[in-house]
Amino acid sequence: MDILIKDVNALLRKGRGSYAVEKTNILISGGKIESIGENISVDSANTVIDGAGKLAMPGLINCHTHVYMTVLRSLADDLPFGEWLFGRVMPNEEKLTSDDAYYSSLYGCLEMLSSGTTAFMEMHMFEGAVARAATDAGMRCVLSRGLTGTMTDGGGMRRLDEAMREMRDYAGNSLLSFAFGPHAVYTTDPEYLKHIGELARKNDILLNVHLSESVTEVSDCIEKYGCTPVEYLEKLGIFENRVIAAHCANVTDNDIKILADNKVNVALNIRSNMKLGNGIPPVAKLFDAGVNLCLGTDSAASNNSLNLFNELAAVTLITKGVERSPVKITAGEALDMATYNGASALGLESGELAEGKNADIVLLDLWRPAFVPANDLVSSLVYCANGSEVDAVIVGGKTVIKDGRHINADMRGAASRVCAITEKFEESKQ
Amino acid sequence: MDILIKDVNALLRKGRGSYAVEKTNILISGGKIESIGENISVDSANTVIDGAGKLAMPGLINCHTHVYMTVLRSLADDLPFGEWLFGRVMPNEEKLTSDDAYYSSLYGCLEMLSSGTTAFMEMHMFEGAVARAATDAGMRCVLSRGLTGTMTDGGGMRRLDEAMREMRDYAGNSLLSFAFGPHAVYTTDPEYLKHIGELARKNDILLNVHLSESVTEVSDCIEKYGCTPVEYLEKLGIFENRVIAAHCANVTDNDIKILADNKVNVALNIRSNMKLGNGIPPVAKLFDAGVNLCLGTDSAASNNSLNLFNELAAVTLITKGVERSPVKITAGEALDMATYNGASALGLESGELAEGKNADIVLLDLWRPAFVPANDLVSSLVYCANGSEVDAVIVGGKTVIKDGRHINADMRGAASRVCAITEKFEESKQ
Repeated sequence: MDILIKDVNALLRKGRGSYAVEKTNILISGGKIESIGENISVDSANTVIDGAGKLAMPGLINCHTHVYMTVLRSLADDLPFGEWLFGRVMPNEEKLTSDDAYYSSLYGCLEMLSSGTTAFMEMHMFEGAVARAATDAGMRCVLSRGLTGTMTDGGGMRRLDEAMREMRDYAGNSLLSFAFGPHAVYTTDPEYLKHIGELARKNDILLNVHLSESVTEVSDCIEKYGCTPVEYLEKLGIFENRVIAAHCANVTDNDIKILADNKVNVALNIRSNMKLGNGIPPVAKLFDAGVNLCLGTDSAASNNSLNLFNELAAVTLITKGVERSPVKITAGEALDMATYNGASALGLESGELAEGKNADIVLLDLWRPAFVPANDLVSSLVYCANGSEVDAVIVGGKTVIKDGRHINADMRGAASRVCAITEKFEESKQ
Repeated sequence: MDILIKDVNALLRKGRGSYAVEKTNILISGGKIESIGENISVDSANTVIDGAGKLAMPGLINCHTHVYMTVLRSLADDLPFGEWLFGRVMPNEEKLTSDDAYYSSLYGCLEMLSSGTTAFMEMHMFEGAVARAATDAGMRCVLSRGLTGTMTDGGGMRRLDEAMREMRDYAGNSLLSFAFGPHAVYTTDPEYLKHIGELARKNDILLNVHLSESVTEVSDCIEKYGCTPVEYLEKLGIFENRVIAAHCANVTDNDIKILADNKVNVALNIRSNMKLGNGIPPVAKLFDAGVNLCLGTDSAASNNSLNLFNELAAVTLITKGVERSPVKITAGEALDMATYNGASALGLESGELAEGKNADIVLLDLWRPAFVPANDLVSSLVYCANGSEVDAVIVGGKTVIKDGRHINADMRGAASRVCAITEKFEESKQ
């Protein structure tokens, strides 16, 4: 079904970190943006959306999360990292069934869609659960099965088999694509990592890995392998693959050079890093080195929100604060990270309002405080908007959010289902 | 008119930085919280609000803003500080009439109320404009006329006269209270500052001052007076007054000791400081020294949002990131800053759901993603909520926001009025 978004204020990318807002029309056909321009006839579409008073932007792309963990939101905060992860998060995560993971993921997808995110990179532990949830929510997703263990412990190869099977099972699904998710240097051994890398290269599959998240990860790696996690992955040949590395909050200057030289994509998770006390990633240095930076929320157990508008503001405000510079990172550069760079990292034809790209489009209400007055809509989008301005969301040419509500999912019912799961949590305060 | 909020999840303060959520009833009478408890009869009130599925919290208190500048939102971002202030903000600010300031302030008040802020400390330049706007919006406000100049330049004494006249003109208004606003050490001279301090002490009037916001302010002060701005104000005897100092982003360890010893209240404006490249205030050090910390948004020209939920999350996340500690500042300690500490700093009987306090109460919708599932509502309030969950707002016992909308103000009309003002801005992209 063709859609015409008429007389809309469209956020158009004019170059690296450069955006303009222009009043125009957007024609959608076959799930793609067919054309953008002033002279598109209303007759050319079955459905016409009145874009007056709306800002059209490319859907945000959340490049690192674990959406199945949404049920663990705010479960255990303001605690030392070890107590948080081993004492609270993991024991309750182990109680989740595949059905629990589905409902938890579905609600997380609805949260993301309703705050303007149209695609996400997931590292999950439940075969099929996130795939079903994303499909039911109408959301684009790159799925990576979390891979931990070794070649010989049974678990490592079983998880890899699951990843391959999921990939085959959902091969015809236009919303889904797939990656391998070698979890981290501290949950895998070198042989297993090399095997994953080789298998991925052979099949041109993206790798999604946690990297240099905490100081402990780095010091343990140096003790065990005599080098930093980034150096270690380079030595193993992993960076000959296409890689998206999450976090990189604790990287050296040499690590940054390696990441840049090997064109490793980095998904910043700034709020998660801060909240867990893992520090603040060296955004300016990574940016200046030319690393392709994109943004992730991490899971609701650590952030605790899946709203990418928070990360969009954080990456520019915090870098300005740390660098004592009002010009670094600009609003446009932050927008690149949340859209264009993310699409590039995940291999998606999305992330930009441009002809031929996926019609993953968000419409925001310009009569909300963030945009009043309209002195600079790009600036307001980054520094003021919080996702509550989202009026409509289109993914792959299909409207999924209309008037701020999902077209078929019952958000309240989905919430109740998630709340019910927490009855099995020992620490729940419900 | 009496109001009973029935069966609500109430955020109750149990001690410093300590909160619990309890299902209870809240009875409001004469603008105050009359009682809180399980056994309050429905017959005791004229109006009953169903609190099921709602979280009742004390209204947020914005301890530093310039609400009349809302029309300057996003006017000039990602620019060096001097170009921002002298090239863009000030030339356009000078074009504002008193009527412009009123409409700009009204919209800012509506923005604050609808995102859960019930009281604010204003430093303004337009006699009467903010007073009228706050009153029309039904919002609590502490007004401080910005005082710049000297004893002999004409302007300094005229502005002080305006401050005194405004105080008399609005003396009977229960929503308004007053402070003097000596602008900063770099816009006043020592004699004028001392005079303001003495006049304020004589009349027991709070002082509201910008302090150690930028590195330049500090280095200029050292060059001119041989000491830091904090040391300078101490020498002038200003800290014998009740004082709220905004920013303190660039203070020394000795400054922090002076602020603590003199019980100076500090209004942090973290997002503004970061955005303008003024650095990140030393929150942990100020907190550990026992300084009463509260939160401000600064103006929409620098933040660019008046939504205090942003600051609530920022103060804990950024401190955790800078300190590399997941336990400092806790969610409860951040909540104190946004409510209890702010009320204390401004001399308001608000900031807490407790008997005898002003009925400044916000109801949030617990069926929004921030609160699903309800593993820990205090945590979710700080780390997830963004103000879009606000369902109802009561100020001084009077409902001003209901079902997310202001009961009498036309938000869209107010927005149009603000947009019209920008036609006189040279740099406007509208």
